[in-house]
Amino acid sequence: MTVATLLVSCPDRTGLVAALSDFVFRHGGNIIDLDQHSDPDSGTFFMRLVFDTVAFRLDREGIQAAIAVMGRSYDLTWELTFGDHRPRVAVFCTKVPHCLYDLLLAQRLGDLAGDIAVVVSNHRDLEHVANHFQVPFVHIAVGADKAAAEAEQTALLARERIDLCVLARYMQVLSPEFVRVRPGRIINIHHSFLPAFVGAKPYHQAKERGVKLIGATAHYVTEQLDQGPIIEQAVTRVSHRDTVEDLVRKGRELERQTLTRAVRVHLERRVLINGNRTVVFA
Amino acid sequence: MTVATLLVSCPDRTGLVAALSDFVFRHGGNIIDLDQHSDPDSGTFFMRLVFDTVAFRLDREGIQAAIAVMGRSYDLTWELTFGDHRPRVAVFCTKVPHCLYDLLLAQRLGDLAGDIAVVVSNHRDLEHVANHFQVPFVHIAVGADKAAAEAEQTALLARERIDLCVLARYMQVLSPEFVRVRPGRIINIHHSFLPAFVGAKPYHQAKERGVKLIGATAHYVTEQLDQGPIIEQAVTRVSHRDTVEDLVRKGRELERQTLTRAVRVHLERRVLINGNRTVVFA
Amino acid sequence: MTVATLLVSCPDRTGLVAALSDFVFRHGGNIIDLDQHSDPDSGTFFMRLVFDTVAFRLDREGIQAAIAVMGRSYDLTWELTFGDHRPRVAVFCTKVPHCLYDLLLAQRLGDLAGDIAVVVSNHRDLEHVANHFQVPFVHIAVGADKAAAEAEQTALLARERIDLCVLARYMQVLSPEFVRVRPGRIINIHHSFLPAFVGAKPYHQAKERGVKLIGATAHYVTEQLDQGPIIEQAVTRVSHRDTVEDLVRKGRELERQTLTRAVRVHLERRVLINGNRTVVFA
Amino acid sequence: MTVATLLVSCPDRTGLVAALSDFVFRHGGNIIDLDQHSDPDSGTFFMRLVFDTVAFRLDREGIQAAIAVMGRSYDLTWELTFGDHRPRVAVFCTKVPHCLYDLLLAQRLGDLAGDIAVVVSNHRDLEHVANHFQVPFVHIAVGADKAAAEAEQTALLARERIDLCVLARYMQVLSPEFVRVRPGRIINIHHSFLPAFVGAKPYHQAKERGVKLIGATAHYVTEQLDQGPIIEQAVTRVSHRDTVEDLVRKGRELERQTLTRAVRVHLERRVLINGNRTVVFA
Repeated sequence: MTVATLLVSCPDRTGLVAALSDFVFRHGGNIIDLDQHSDPDSGTFFMRLVFDTVAFRLDREGIQAAIAVMGRSYDLTWELTFGDHRPRVAVFCTKVPHCLYDLLLAQRLGDLAGDIAVVVSNHRDLEHVANHFQVPFVHIAVGADKAAAEAEQTALLARERIDLCVLARYMQVLSPEFVRVRPGRIINIHHSFLPAFVGAKPYHQAKERGVKLIGATAHYVTEQLDQGPIIEQAVTRVSHRDTVEDLVRKGRELERQTLTRAVRVHLERRVLINGNRTVVFA
Repeated sequence: MTVATLLVSCPDRTGLVAALSDFVFRHGGNIIDLDQHSDPDSGTFFMRLVFDTVAFRLDREGIQAAIAVMGRSYDLTWELTFGDHRPRVAVFCTKVPHCLYDLLLAQRLGDLAGDIAVVVSNHRDLEHVANHFQVPFVHIAVGADKAAAEAEQTALLARERIDLCVLARYMQVLSPEFVRVRPGRIINIHHSFLPAFVGAKPYHQAKERGVKLIGATAHYVTEQLDQGPIIEQAVTRVSHRDTVEDLVRKGRELERQTLTRAVRVHLERRVLINGNRTVVFA
Repeated sequence: MTVATLLVSCPDRTGLVAALSDFVFRHGGNIIDLDQHSDPDSGTFFMRLVFDTVAFRLDREGIQAAIAVMGRSYDLTWELTFGDHRPRVAVFCTKVPHCLYDLLLAQRLGDLAGDIAVVVSNHRDLEHVANHFQVPFVHIAVGADKAAAEAEQTALLARERIDLCVLARYMQVLSPEFVRVRPGRIINIHHSFLPAFVGAKPYHQAKERGVKLIGATAHYVTEQLDQGPIIEQAVTRVSHRDTVEDLVRKGRELERQTLTRAVRVHLERRVLINGNRTVVFA
Repeated sequence: MTVATLLVSCPDRTGLVAALSDFVFRHGGNIIDLDQHSDPDSGTFFMRLVFDTVAFRLDREGIQAAIAVMGRSYDLTWELTFGDHRPRVAVFCTKVPHCLYDLLLAQRLGDLAGDIAVVVSNHRDLEHVANHFQVPFVHIAVGADKAAAEAEQTALLARERIDLCVLARYMQVLSPEFVRVRPGRIINIHHSFLPAFVGAKPYHQAKERGVKLIGATAHYVTEQLDQGPIIEQAVTRVSHRDTVEDLVRKGRELERQTLTRAVRVHLERRVLINGNRTVVFA
């Protein structure tokens, strides 16, 4: 079965669901899943439509063209992908391995609707992890000349036709230029329940403040540090007994779960960006 | 704005979403919310469609008639309700007050899309609670002659035109006859994470077994005790320190939350029954 | 059985547990519960010791005197209470009833090791709730002259011999003077996961930021708004579907649970203050 | 700093805490952590006492001998371990890798107070995982002659001086003989919230029953399948959308977390067995 997933956002108006579901029906398709959301604040309509194309009376180019026509008349922002297209992912990491293991194991277990094509790091500490999972590892040192490193990264991403960058505890701040050209295409894991404890050393901040829960936040990276649209968050309970080291250990569990979940829903095209927020269809 | 909610279940086939959304669109309605689910096990399609009827070019009878026509051609089981219809609820209780308070307070705060029309009890202990919330209280003693008590209850439910019975820690087993004629119309709260600890004294069973979490389960009542379709469940952490009394206290929190949530989603027509399971649209 | 609870904090040193447990043993007492914690950051030792005094060979004054002697030699900050002493609580509220109901119901169900002696409010909206639970209600209007209102409140608290003030969604900021003389004696519920979303309208802030979890925080009130030692926190999941009104509804559940739990552990003398943090013994 | 951990259980009586804490104090030790619990049902006292021995005026044999003397007079069941003793662990697995990765990564990150000395499996599928973490792998086929396989396993455990067996989704039932001689020394992960869904295919059972939460349970293995003392449990939310495959995926997250947590607290000697239940000191 070949499945197509259509993501749509547009100014809210009547008839959108009817038009799109009718399009699928008239051409012999079958709707497998349909989710929609109207945001009253921004007046925007969001939809995710998954349909079976096996008996479709249009080929892929025909479907693309037909949706493009509807797109113009309904002012749609849309993205159509077919189930056999697997987005290509680059995982950026530095030295801590837990998020990298989680992503690579998820991929091996078949939990991700995409392929981790390359692991990029500014250190060689995790090269053996990439090797173990038989994923290419590329070392790009980040020194005084950050721009040079980013140029190398950019070339690599182009060469590998990367659709999504995942920062798996990558301890470097990306330049605004790098981020700006990849809107909704870079996912980061922040080790706190944002917006609490932005910036460095959030577990130390959490210990200092004496919170009873700590969290982790997966979000799209924007030019404003720790301010991008949140995809997924989780928390766990801590107590006065927990040292900063305990928070780090408990936090690792949250970080890797939260990041892998965010990557999974992104790759399944369940996430749409709504200004500085997200719509995540279950 | 007058809103209509259409619940549909039927054998799965293509064109259902298109037909129903097109029906709304062609008559000048606007889809506010649409959720659908196909269960591959039973081959059944479920849909919840909320639409605005303010500019609809059919009156209510017309809408009913039109859907009835579609219902025949698509073999639909359907239920249409209009937003100004508020289902009437009877809460059954005995002596413990926490679930009753929670439901009555939820109603007062405007959290329920229905009205608690009467509180029924086999004891008078909670009469003052009903009085406080200005809801009629009816005492129906349940003695040796259970059938007589149920006849009284049945008469009351008819007189009050009750749509939903909620068993808020009602310590009596209803007869199969009473249950059979109210499919999906009686919600019970069981004080365990079903199917663990069916039957009596689940907190004692939980203590005895040494579990690390206890739970509560809201479910539709069927003729098989503790076996009906589950609507909502929740758990909380316990430890070796917790006595049975502590479990009871912690459990109260779960029971009332879980029951009130189940009643809320039922009244918002978010629940469809699928054999012995439920579909609960978020 | 008469039980005594001793709370101790002091500079950490060896022999503290031995000295205190030996004191209990030598006088014929029996340790029921003992919890201790050493904070390496501040070098402080915390202990909660619950012991049965039924066979104690000292009367209450004798116990007090003996602990005072140990207190001097070990530099202890200590507080000794007997199980038959029930702290007296004043609940401050304004118009929203959910936290007040939760506290009053907890008291009626016997869940609190203290007595709600009075409900204080700057409005009369919740008078009937206090009446229903047969707790005195005092209306103290807060107008332009805040100092006058606080003088009235202070007189009331003295008259009623209040040990603990609970701000159950009390929509007024207390003066530094009022707060300063009641260290660790005022508990507030803030409707966010502090330190995220300090200040007013946290649910609006949460909606705006697009978080995937919302929270509530019970904390001791200090002169710095929303900065006092945190006693308890909880969160619940939200999604893009949730409006601000939904967040408010979901948040109510968190607020009341979190506040009642904090009050419960405070009244059971499970909480010690450690600078701007708390030690909460399970 | 050399730390000693004393676990004690005995018939409850007065003076136990005083005697043990005084013993530490008189010999120049310092109590780092003390937890105790009295179970009123069985009349049993449990204690975990962690103390610093750096300035102790007895050597290890002296401490052992002194505790043995107290043990006789107070009828103690006790276990004393020193912080530099690291228990040796054997992980049993079959083909699914997630729990094995979690344990091995936890070990590498320094989260476990013990050493995984060997990975044992009845298949070779996970040999490369053990190799990657540089832990010896032993393949012991389990065929028709189960007794022969268990004899091989027993020999291996003896040779490797194994203190704890961890069944990381090991798809074989151990014989009563194997289990009986290792009380509290075998930890299993069951992929359901026990006692719900005992036996095979719990995720299928969960799907069939339509539960709204699924769970995992780590427990000591006893001769009664799925009935041993529970160490740790966790749950996660599921919905009608989740297929059995989704439950399996969500369950993996629970299984590995729950198992690794149980192994961690066991190795930190936080767990005491109380009949068919556990005391787990935080």
